[in-house]
Amino acid sequence: MKLDLNDPGLNLYLRVYNYYKDLICSGKMQPGTRLPSIRKCAMQLQLSRTTVETAYMLLAAEGYILSRPQSGYYVTEILNSGLREAWKPGGKETDGPKIRYDFASSNVDRDSFQFDLWRRYIKSSLRQDERLLSYGEPQGERELREAICSYLGRHRGVVCTPEHIVVGAGVQSLLHILCPMVRDRKNAYFYNPGFRQGRTIFEDFEFRTEGMRSAREAGGPDSGSICYLTPSQMTVWGEVMHITERMDLLKEAFEKDILIIEDDYNSEFRYYNRPTPSLQGLAGGRGVVYLGTFSRLLLPSIRMSFMVLPPELLPVYRERSRYYNQTSSKTEQIALCQFIRDGHLESQIRKARKLYTAKAKKLCEDIGRIFGDRAVPHLGEAGFLVLAEIRTELTSEEIARKAAHAGIAVRAVVPEEGKGGESMNPRILLSCATVGTEHYEEALTELYDSIFG
Amino acid sequence: MKLDLNDPGLNLYLRVYNYYKDLICSGKMQPGTRLPSIRKCAMQLQLSRTTVETAYMLLAAEGYILSRPQSGYYVTEILNSGLREAWKPGGKETDGPKIRYDFASSNVDRDSFQFDLWRRYIKSSLRQDERLLSYGEPQGERELREAICSYLGRHRGVVCTPEHIVVGAGVQSLLHILCPMVRDRKNAYFYNPGFRQGRTIFEDFEFRTEGMRSAREAGGPDSGSICYLTPSQMTVWGEVMHITERMDLLKEAFEKDILIIEDDYNSEFRYYNRPTPSLQGLAGGRGVVYLGTFSRLLLPSIRMSFMVLPPELLPVYRERSRYYNQTSSKTEQIALCQFIRDGHLESQIRKARKLYTAKAKKLCEDIGRIFGDRAVPHLGEAGFLVLAEIRTELTSEEIARKAAHAGIAVRAVVPEEGKGGESMNPRILLSCATVGTEHYEEALTELYDSIFG
Repeated sequence: MKLDLNDPGLNLYLRVYNYYKDLICSGKMQPGTRLPSIRKCAMQLQLSRTTVETAYMLLAAEGYILSRPQSGYYVTEILNSGLREAWKPGGKETDGPKIRYDFASSNVDRDSFQFDLWRRYIKSSLRQDERLLSYGEPQGERELREAICSYLGRHRGVVCTPEHIVVGAGVQSLLHILCPMVRDRKNAYFYNPGFRQGRTIFEDFEFRTEGMRSAREAGGPDSGSICYLTPSQMTVWGEVMHITERMDLLKEAFEKDILIIEDDYNSEFRYYNRPTPSLQGLAGGRGVVYLGTFSRLLLPSIRMSFMVLPPELLPVYRERSRYYNQTSSKTEQIALCQFIRDGHLESQIRKARKLYTAKAKKLCEDIGRIFGDRAVPHLGEAGFLVLAEIRTELTSEEIARKAAHAGIAVRAVVPEEGKGGESMNPRILLSCATVGTEHYEEALTELYDSIFG
Repeated sequence: MKLDLNDPGLNLYLRVYNYYKDLICSGKMQPGTRLPSIRKCAMQLQLSRTTVETAYMLLAAEGYILSRPQSGYYVTEILNSGLREAWKPGGKETDGPKIRYDFASSNVDRDSFQFDLWRRYIKSSLRQDERLLSYGEPQGERELREAICSYLGRHRGVVCTPEHIVVGAGVQSLLHILCPMVRDRKNAYFYNPGFRQGRTIFEDFEFRTEGMRSAREAGGPDSGSICYLTPSQMTVWGEVMHITERMDLLKEAFEKDILIIEDDYNSEFRYYNRPTPSLQGLAGGRGVVYLGTFSRLLLPSIRMSFMVLPPELLPVYRERSRYYNQTSSKTEQIALCQFIRDGHLESQIRKARKLYTAKAKKLCEDIGRIFGDRAVPHLGEAGFLVLAEIRTELTSEEIARKAAHAGIAVRAVVPEEGKGGESMNPRILLSCATVGTEHYEEALTELYDSIFG
């Protein structure tokens, strides 16, 4: 037995362990071979029995050897069969045809974002060495919360102070903090189409969740429940909740002690320059949790969202906040804060809105031209979406499938997603965000052929 | 009534709303004043009654006016009293004396991190425009997971493939995904001192949680439960769980179907260059969830952690993963991946370990010199901690309080945090991470005076 007992770098038991492990892995000790007994091995190596026993336990724990009572330790076969098998990749790679034109993407247009500008802000943030050496504020950097607060007041009529704002890496991270605070409410209603990822978190916390098409459905939400909605995106093509509907909902919420969660997703990309006031603002800041995100506005890869807590939830949050670490990158928080202060967020929104409006209009026109009377395109209220009604016997899912087969991704709109009195024709939804206008003609012609060809 | 109805930028109801809001806020309409009736106002302005009603509802919702049934709308007083009051900052700023020497900080030493190097990697990551335009992989960028996998295999003996790794913005973000997957287990045991933030998440998911001082306490954890521990930091001063203890725990876990959560916090900063093998590795990857973080290793402000799921949890995770968005910054993920590939993580660990070892040794010596026989300092096993036994009648909490008063933060070690057979003297814990060695003399002298002066 060659065992370098003088190697100073390793514990004794690890040396014994390594010795046998190598023998087994190299095949020099075949499955079924019996190892020397602990007593014998300890004697041979002049080590304590405990040392050898520890090494054997280690080998057994890792599946290299097996202890047979009253008999001894044997080299196993499992390493080459069962155990290793379990560690193989699951092979869950999606095959299918490659998508060349993605009209279903939630990514953003390359031209909507000024990379050079953002890089400058990140660079300057990374120069603040001292600040980066410490953990951030659990609630989010104070000065970023101030910048968000003043932005929200100006643009969304949100009533708040920086104390009410909590920053996090995405809306889900914020719901993880919010849900335990409001778990007494038990029931949560999600207005369609809602935000599947949001609903997941409520289900994780064992809320009873239910989808809903409108506040007027079947008596509305229960007393004391939670209502989660995206008032700037009430349908998949982005219809906005009307002010009177908002007031009705707030009235009902007040009477029935319902907590509203207003996910103001996509509120920035309306065609019309005057977005409807936020529910939070309409309610004077009470009874509403306001959620917003910068991922869509800047870059999806920047994970930064925020929530505005109503005053009645603040004491609970303050008590709990020290147990939650901040999730959002401090570097990016510092950069974003300066970016907002310098007015770039506003210009970024204007730029993106203009770009998407032009792209969506052109997409609408091109569909009209290429599909002729076989399609009726509508400009969606959400700035970058086009809803197209297709004159065919196919269902919308069949269209999406055929398109995907031809390498074009479109989103099928199922009848349940529409409002009352739908047309009989199938509808698909196209986002203009990632396909360049120079590719419209080719992509739409191929889409046409995949449906009618 | 002067109302610019030709202003094209606003909805009609918003103009009516703004008009009254300004009158009220400026004090031109005093509390108690009655507004014209909806009918009358609509007639005067030649607007529809709905428009005026909407404006009034808005004003009422925001608390500017109040509707008295059968009477009309009146300007309220609440804006200046109750409502605005609730929005005042909570005044929860911690006063107390300013800390000048922070021996209780979990931040890192400025010299432990090569800012210039990291900046280069971030810059190069930000140049990958196309990648940053899309959302990241929910599980974390594939190539980062590959880099982590090979690092873990080399340094911690962790058995895994990139498919088993999930990246997230901090350990809490990962526990948010894990908890709902294992909620059937109901009971979770936390070995002291544990990780309070981790326990919070389990409590949020309504696990029954319990602290524990060792696996041998009162029959150990229940069958089918969860055991959360930090084996590289079993006491506050960083004792490492011994290999035989590890084997005992694994044996018990296997027999009683206990899921182990191994939070390998601080495993990199041992003095001895051979860290004990991870529980995950010892168990051959089964029955153990391994958690690790880069925040402590690189910068606390970089929010990047990972978990290694055992094969038995993979199918559940795969089914659920699409409902969770990635929380960690994609830019930082891409940067870290290249940083690890280029070998900088290893050199960073060596550098930090060397620095902290030297600093902690000096701190130990200086305490001995300045406190004389009134203190017995011990080098903690966690690379940057010094445990000092103080010969005084005060309790450890009293020492910490007096020190804080003098502007020095130290951590009190309460008797429950020690192991059996403690000394009668109070103990405090000092981290050398953020105080420069050039300040030791002054800081320790002041600490001495605050206790004995």
